[in-house]
Amino acid sequence: MADKFSLILFSGDYDKAMAAFTLANGAAGNQMEVTVFFTFWGVSLLRNRTQPRRSFLENLFKMMMPSGPRELGLSKMNFGGLGPKLMQKLIAEKNGQTLDDLLSMAKERKIRFVACEASLKLLGIEPSELIDYEYLEIAGVDRFLNNASESKISLFI
Amino acid sequence: MADKFSLILFSGDYDKAMAAFTLANGAAGNQMEVTVFFTFWGVSLLRNRTQPRRSFLENLFKMMMPSGPRELGLSKMNFGGLGPKLMQKLIAEKNGQTLDDLLSMAKERKIRFVACEASLKLLGIEPSELIDYEYLEIAGVDRFLNNASESKISLFI
Amino acid sequence: MADKFSLILFSGDYDKAMAAFTLANGAAGNQMEVTVFFTFWGVSLLRNRTQPRRSFLENLFKMMMPSGPRELGLSKMNFGGLGPKLMQKLIAEKNGQTLDDLLSMAKERKIRFVACEASLKLLGIEPSELIDYEYLEIAGVDRFLNNASESKISLFI
Repeated sequence: MADKFSLILFSGDYDKAMAAFTLANGAAGNQMEVTVFFTFWGVSLLRNRTQPRRSFLENLFKMMMPSGPRELGLSKMNFGGLGPKLMQKLIAEKNGQTLDDLLSMAKERKIRFVACEASLKLLGIEPSELIDYEYLEIAGVDRFLNNASESKISLFI
Repeated sequence: MADKFSLILFSGDYDKAMAAFTLANGAAGNQMEVTVFFTFWGVSLLRNRTQPRRSFLENLFKMMMPSGPRELGLSKMNFGGLGPKLMQKLIAEKNGQTLDDLLSMAKERKIRFVACEASLKLLGIEPSELIDYEYLEIAGVDRFLNNASESKISLFI
Repeated sequence: MADKFSLILFSGDYDKAMAAFTLANGAAGNQMEVTVFFTFWGVSLLRNRTQPRRSFLENLFKMMMPSGPRELGLSKMNFGGLGPKLMQKLIAEKNGQTLDDLLSMAKERKIRFVACEASLKLLGIEPSELIDYEYLEIAGVDRFLNNASESKISLFI
């Protein structure tokens, strides 16, 4: 089995995304080939701007979905939306890495990003609304299954 | 290692169950032998009717637990219980697959379902309250561990 | 690949911790070498007392974080904090194992516990605030990645 690490990021929570990218960056630092599959709420992390949509339901879900790492909430102790700001301050206090830092490092380490095709379609997100990143592709579930079948570690977060 | 895929469905959320069965159906479509272990809130998906219970606590938890895929909530943006209905409408708008559709496909593809024995006992759910399905069995944690040990991919959702 | 089982416990929920230790204890009972990595909210399970902190944000998060298994909440049906007590009563009714019982068994079976170094630092938890346990160590993400690379099963809970 190849030295691959496959990770599904389903969650759109700040803390879970931090855990995901801490693992991904660590693996990439150990020369593993790392692929992160962003599905459902996880695709929030790949959004960089919002385009107006036609469907009311699309708008409802998209309006509520964060755009980019700074808008994510915490899975626990969200303190009415204040949680992530507090978490970021706490990270700064400790000279730790924010989610923004972790994502930058992931790109420096050329971690492969895959945006789940079905999730984009369902939530009405166009490819043009995603971040610019050389190693970002859009693909279906088979892309994950093939990669995970060859991976030493596969996780769902 | 055999071409097996083992999945624990702990969550009783509509969106997480969608992710689980999208993966499971995809793997089965790729000729992997797929087994889904339903534990804790995940067993909601296997319930088709409710029998009266004797214990107050059993009743409390069971009363609050969904019966079947249509009663599940969303892990995010549940909109006070309205989320899954909106999600189902959004899926219909996109000609996508609802959780009902995904479960039907899982049965067509003969995916093995295992209901966690301890969870049924804890939540006071009798085998007679579960759906009729040829490949549904009731078993303990060893069933998962043996299967996962032989699987290329194991996930906890 | 060795007969190892690697588990990340990110969650600080009573029900998810029950699932984690049911799996871990089952695997250890089957002679697998089991390692549980406690990260983020999961480190709550390792706390046995609280020391006063200097930073306001540290105090805020720590004050809200449970200390030990009895203070954890449920991921669903928490009933305003009452959920875990009801769950414990329900377990007692069924002669099942509470989270306390599961943790004791994990220690009897010499399951290795690893507390995530970065999480302790971030949340301001000192080693002296953790439970006494011979097989508890503090380590970074590489410890998990190395172990998981050699494991038949790796899960993120």
